Amino acid sequence: MTSAAAVVREFWRLMATNHFASVASVLAPSFVLEWPQSSERIRGPERFITMNVEYPAHGPWRFTINRIVEGEGDVATDVSVTDGVQHARAISFFTVAGGRITRLVEYWPEPFAARTDRSHLVEPIE
Amino acid sequence: MTSAAAVVREFWRLMATNHFASVASVLAPSFVLEWPQSSERIRGPERFITMNVEYPAHGPWRFTINRIVEGEGDVATDVSVTDGVQHARAISFFTVAGGRITRLVEYWPEPFAARTDRSHLVEPIE
Repeated sequence: MTSAAAVVREFWRLMATNHFASVASVLAPSFVLEWPQSSERIRGPERFITMNVEYPAHGPWRFTINRIVEGEGDVATDVSVTDGVQHARAISFFTVAGGRITRLVEYWPEPFAARTDRSHLVEPIE
Repeated sequence: MTSAAAVVREFWRLMATNHFASVASVLAPSFVLEWPQSSERIRGPERFITMNVEYPAHGPWRFTINRIVEGEGDVATDVSVTDGVQHARAISFFTVAGGRITRLVEYWPEPFAARTDRSHLVEPIE
């Protein structure tokens, strides 16, 4: 029995090969991806793979897992993503059943300016 | 022995009272909050409480836990936050030790426009 976290680690390992078709091996046929920030939903492994293949890139994508929270049937990851030019952070909530990812809800937080009215309480992160 | 997830649920319950000083009961003396998007770090329960008390609000804050991923010593939550006028989403990674929250790394994803070049693969989330 593969743990949910092991399935998610395999997802990121396969993503890092940049052979996105290979990622299908950890996706359920009913796989659904949701990006709530843009209200986008992608249904099925095939569309997910196509989206990754077609996404404009300046080079191979590299993924750094900053954190993984291992629940029983769900897993959260904090991953840095870059193609050498574009840099992003993906916060991903995976649902895993039967050794496959059935659902991925993903957030892409962008930098924002610190509020000045709380500067007396704050120090910068190095 | 209180589970990490129980401590985090208590954190959100206390936040929802809007009596932010009460939240100190689940924070370690060494508590640190980090917002990587703005590179802000807040050290200690006292500054964290002051920040919440001073944050401009149009009414009492309400929190809706959309999801909680329960790891052993760490917990991730996806929470909607509103004061009736301001609406935000907080993705929070908690580290818990000895029944107290020692570290909170938090992201605030904002809405973004869907890319048009993937519209053939996407449906809107209702």
